[in-house]
Amino acid sequence: MQLKEMNQEALSLLQNTCQAQYQAFQAAGLKLDMSRGKPSPKQLDLTNGMQTCLSASDYTAENGLDCRNYGCLDGLPEAKAFFAPMLGLKPEDVIVCGNSSLNMMYWAMSLAMTNGVLDSKPWGKYDKVKVLCPVPGYDRHFAVSQFLGMELVNVPMQADGPDMDMVEQLVSTDDTIKAIWCVPMYSNPGGVVYSDEVMKRFAALKPKAADFRIFWDNAYCVHHLTDHPPVQANLLEEARKVGNEDICYLFASTSKITFPGSGVALMAASERNLASLKKALGFSTIGYDKLNQLRHLRFFDGKYENLVAHMKKHKDLIAPKFRIVIDTLQRELGELGIANWSEPLGGYFISFNQTGCAKRIVQLCKEAGVVLTGAGASFPMGVDPKDENIRISPTYPTEEELQKAMEVFTCSAKLAALEQVL
Amino acid sequence: MQLKEMNQEALSLLQNTCQAQYQAFQAAGLKLDMSRGKPSPKQLDLTNGMQTCLSASDYTAENGLDCRNYGCLDGLPEAKAFFAPMLGLKPEDVIVCGNSSLNMMYWAMSLAMTNGVLDSKPWGKYDKVKVLCPVPGYDRHFAVSQFLGMELVNVPMQADGPDMDMVEQLVSTDDTIKAIWCVPMYSNPGGVVYSDEVMKRFAALKPKAADFRIFWDNAYCVHHLTDHPPVQANLLEEARKVGNEDICYLFASTSKITFPGSGVALMAASERNLASLKKALGFSTIGYDKLNQLRHLRFFDGKYENLVAHMKKHKDLIAPKFRIVIDTLQRELGELGIANWSEPLGGYFISFNQTGCAKRIVQLCKEAGVVLTGAGASFPMGVDPKDENIRISPTYPTEEELQKAMEVFTCSAKLAALEQVL
Repeated sequence: MQLKEMNQEALSLLQNTCQAQYQAFQAAGLKLDMSRGKPSPKQLDLTNGMQTCLSASDYTAENGLDCRNYGCLDGLPEAKAFFAPMLGLKPEDVIVCGNSSLNMMYWAMSLAMTNGVLDSKPWGKYDKVKVLCPVPGYDRHFAVSQFLGMELVNVPMQADGPDMDMVEQLVSTDDTIKAIWCVPMYSNPGGVVYSDEVMKRFAALKPKAADFRIFWDNAYCVHHLTDHPPVQANLLEEARKVGNEDICYLFASTSKITFPGSGVALMAASERNLASLKKALGFSTIGYDKLNQLRHLRFFDGKYENLVAHMKKHKDLIAPKFRIVIDTLQRELGELGIANWSEPLGGYFISFNQTGCAKRIVQLCKEAGVVLTGAGASFPMGVDPKDENIRISPTYPTEEELQKAMEVFTCSAKLAALEQVL
Repeated sequence: MQLKEMNQEALSLLQNTCQAQYQAFQAAGLKLDMSRGKPSPKQLDLTNGMQTCLSASDYTAENGLDCRNYGCLDGLPEAKAFFAPMLGLKPEDVIVCGNSSLNMMYWAMSLAMTNGVLDSKPWGKYDKVKVLCPVPGYDRHFAVSQFLGMELVNVPMQADGPDMDMVEQLVSTDDTIKAIWCVPMYSNPGGVVYSDEVMKRFAALKPKAADFRIFWDNAYCVHHLTDHPPVQANLLEEARKVGNEDICYLFASTSKITFPGSGVALMAASERNLASLKKALGFSTIGYDKLNQLRHLRFFDGKYENLVAHMKKHKDLIAPKFRIVIDTLQRELGELGIANWSEPLGGYFISFNQTGCAKRIVQLCKEAGVVLTGAGASFPMGVDPKDENIRISPTYPTEEELQKAMEVFTCSAKLAALEQVL
């Protein structure tokens, strides 16, 4: 029965049951952390071989370059060739960087502030610079822009990507809008896969600001939870078809493929953008860690299909965890009609919505020993206008911990809903 | 006999001899590259053990942190403890970063442009921002500031550091001067060791701009060419003594200790600066490569004296090369009185000066198959006002190649001098 159909007596009965459950959770002294989208130790074990796959004499690139020394600003040629398929691109479209794609995004946006894009005026020289933020979205994206002094403008996410009517209307009329943040596949946190229609509308955008850039963070492009993942059109290729290829910067990394913090980041862009970015890169570093690029190549034996097979092992470890979350949500909340949640085909998050209750649920969970990502984290400045969204990160805890945590979570969700109506 | 004392006949005779030599060099079809301050392959071999010093199960920090996963923004505690002595500081003064100290310097200066220092107005919001550049100096330092839109102001280097009378006069009267670049030990290229007197004057600087920062690149702090290296006062400690500790950012790296591009960078600053920098760091990365920090700790067995011993092995390989350069310069040019050069006690360069001849010498060398760093490279915008300075990098070539290259070099120097007088 839906909560809204219950009479006072039924509501009170449910509340009593939930409160008893909740007190039992509190008494159990739980300490569970679901706040971060981190791989579990078992997932990391999949990559342990990377620690030992370089011998003491294995440091020479295919072109003879000594990877122990200076040189090779934009990544080993064989690393470009190896990783380009991750983004569905050619080696010449890609540069292979250091250990953090977030760092590349920060660098690229900071660079636009200090030096503009291509030959534009530096963004920092304008009185006002805005960035579009599809919400709910990734807090660290929004934080980068906010830190750099940009104004954040919310755009609602829909089932097939950001509201493109709104995006087109805004960027075509307001030249203070210089960028948009996108996670096109398995968006953080909603798990949305942008449709080809959305992708093509992005590729064909005609912004009023010529120095507008799409920051396209394809963080989860190979992070599937099914054996038959969706196939997505390629933004850079689509943009090339309509002569608009300078509009986007693409990013990805191996942080959740090999080791977070010890992985390899990728950036891709048009030929003109890449030429300009490489020139700028030469001022900001002498080069990235080529031995770590080599380590990745050796670990996967230089074969992209080995990376794909490796991602299936990740899937085998984390898909059951997503199942636990969704099954528990369905079992405990399905009939009540108080909430909805995503059932993503990939990525690292489940997005949960219960209007007016997000903060309260996070608080109740915390008081019962389950730490969640803060309510509002998926919105610019941490402000969720409907106080409804919670990002659930199922990957790090064990299945047992996760099951327990989801029981606390659903109990808290029911209590929060009851507090609203009683 | 000095060149200026020679009569026409002696000059012509010398020219004939040099031209014959030069033609023989050209005929030999040499291909020698002395353009870069790179370690030689033999030096890199000293560190090969770092490729294999982490076992597949060795990824846990002393505090239990799994170094394979996210977390630990500012470096492993044991890495801070291990590397702090390099800068003569305490672990809490230091953060341990990624593979490039140049990248940290770019980041810190770019950050000052976009966000200021501590709570100051962003440098980029001023119409004009200047940086002091001790010359000759490191081209990449100057290039960072130029790229970020700063105006470069030359300050002459003296035997004990930059001309401090000029530095004090400029920074105390001109609040558009926001920074100065320094390489305090074995400066690039002059090999100058800043005196304690100079250090103390830096520590006590009273800039008109409260947001002025000394960018103190201690790139060669443990890169000695003697067994009894000079001992230098510590800028941050000296600045603390006079309550001026927020004035400086310190940098160093293991690029020329372990592997360039696969090393570890360090940054040090006052408590207030570090708190502000760490906050900013949280927007620009999720963290650095902790496994590579662990790799460094394991390779040196966590003992700083092993790093010191390792640097003696570098010294044993490169000191003879510096000897070859200096002996050849002395033998071939010593009596002629046309040039002078540094005899550094450490670092990677010998600075050579021959007024009005630098470009011509580089050209002559190139045409005889010896590539040098471009003349003027050690000056802002590549403009050496006296066309006199050439940076000689002895480390990369073999001793045999270096001997040959220096013969070409000294022959070219003589020819250039003769062209001036004949």
